[in-house]
Amino acid sequence: MTSDHPITATTINAAISELWIAGSDDCVEVSPTHAIARRQIDQSTLRPGAFVSGPAQFSLADAVLWYLVFGVLDRVEPMALTSELSIRFLRPAQGTAIWARADLEKAGRTSVVGTVRLWMDEADDRTVSTAQGTYALPRG
Amino acid sequence: MTSDHPITATTINAAISELWIAGSDDCVEVSPTHAIARRQIDQSTLRPGAFVSGPAQFSLADAVLWYLVFGVLDRVEPMALTSELSIRFLRPAQGTAIWARADLEKAGRTSVVGTVRLWMDEADDRTVSTAQGTYALPRG
Amino acid sequence: MTSDHPITATTINAAISELWIAGSDDCVEVSPTHAIARRQIDQSTLRPGAFVSGPAQFSLADAVLWYLVFGVLDRVEPMALTSELSIRFLRPAQGTAIWARADLEKAGRTSVVGTVRLWMDEADDRTVSTAQGTYALPRG
Amino acid sequence: MTSDHPITATTINAAISELWIAGSDDCVEVSPTHAIARRQIDQSTLRPGAFVSGPAQFSLADAVLWYLVFGVLDRVEPMALTSELSIRFLRPAQGTAIWARADLEKAGRTSVVGTVRLWMDEADDRTVSTAQGTYALPRG
Repeated sequence: MTSDHPITATTINAAISELWIAGSDDCVEVSPTHAIARRQIDQSTLRPGAFVSGPAQFSLADAVLWYLVFGVLDRVEPMALTSELSIRFLRPAQGTAIWARADLEKAGRTSVVGTVRLWMDEADDRTVSTAQGTYALPRG
Repeated sequence: MTSDHPITATTINAAISELWIAGSDDCVEVSPTHAIARRQIDQSTLRPGAFVSGPAQFSLADAVLWYLVFGVLDRVEPMALTSELSIRFLRPAQGTAIWARADLEKAGRTSVVGTVRLWMDEADDRTVSTAQGTYALPRG
Repeated sequence: MTSDHPITATTINAAISELWIAGSDDCVEVSPTHAIARRQIDQSTLRPGAFVSGPAQFSLADAVLWYLVFGVLDRVEPMALTSELSIRFLRPAQGTAIWARADLEKAGRTSVVGTVRLWMDEADDRTVSTAQGTYALPRG
Repeated sequence: MTSDHPITATTINAAISELWIAGSDDCVEVSPTHAIARRQIDQSTLRPGAFVSGPAQFSLADAVLWYLVFGVLDRVEPMALTSELSIRFLRPAQGTAIWARADLEKAGRTSVVGTVRLWMDEADDRTVSTAQGTYALPRG
């Protein structure tokens, strides 16, 4: 796996699609202190009422934190694993794409903590869910 | 939608498969104070290293809490929605089926709170993740 | 209890000290979308190593969310109660005052969700802990 | 600091009162897989309506997890620190003593995860709050 300096969204998406077939959570932006990701909505993620399901929102929140970890480390690190994540669902999530932004709270030697906000389409002022979580880093 | 009294896992699985195409989280047991669910693992849920992904574990935790809500209400209630859920990942999740058990902490008029434990195959003494969360009930 | 329009930190502190003897978490700023609170550190809140304890940090996080609820409602509402709160401890908390800022994620009819960041003294760029939580509002 | 084998509640309470003045959260039972703690309620912890405050409940939940860590390690370890803790408040907490029981979810080399249930007086079937959290262990 190659690594640009600094790492880019393109590098991350290429690495994810090599590593992991089900990568529908695209990285859009990444830096050492934030990441943005997007998932196009398809029928398989829709709960009754045409809402994006909680698990699909969790998946995007988890992915955008992973991309933030890559931004912190300046490399794609598949063995960075979620330790814990809490999510609060605030509004019905309806639309054609769901977006998530992760902001860094703390990058330590053994873990990275971030806060995530999710929204639909252009409505970035209407948070549909919010999350916080921790990724454990592999030992160097 | 019909409702047995008391509600059974069979009733729940039939209702879920009518409501929602992607229902791969089967209800195995349900009562007013607990529920058990199981997901057979396929490739699309596997992260690098052949682990069940965090989002797939979250999905099962979320589903088993939903089934617990159905047990509490004694009916399938599609409009019961997750308010918040926190999950902690404890061990690598490898195997052919992932199981989850939800136990009731509190059934109120407007919400249900439960604790969830997940494990792989027969290893019910090796928790792979643990969660707690709240479902909001629709107004009666 | 009187209520200014809009509510101020002074109003909140006066109401809290009438209501509740142990009010050591001062409101410093409040608006419909944020609140800031501060606690002067005394020995009783110090764990071994002279760190501000986790529970003291939780107390301030809980208080600043309460003040945010007052800002949302534009009144002091003692019967607004915490439903759930998660907190992550990021760095040792040493200093003479601990600060917290709550930002609104969602103000609904029955609940308010916010994100909280805590820091010591002037070091507002070194988050010592971060929290998210929900307050339940009394029925109108 | 001396250490019995296996560690007892008496050992823990003696060590806590030496280490930390504000120790009002007594250890009642401890083993490698559970701990029980109790706090007598005084006025300083009461919110309007004579309820035990959320922060006092958090404090006890945090303490009982600490005691569980001591049971896991078979020693009092003041440098074991809370990484994260989430708590859900389920019912009004009224009475003369608040109790908490922590059960072990996972004891790892670097962290311990547990689930906590709190109740008042003899009403151990009416959970007033429930929590889950992680303690980080110092490097050996």
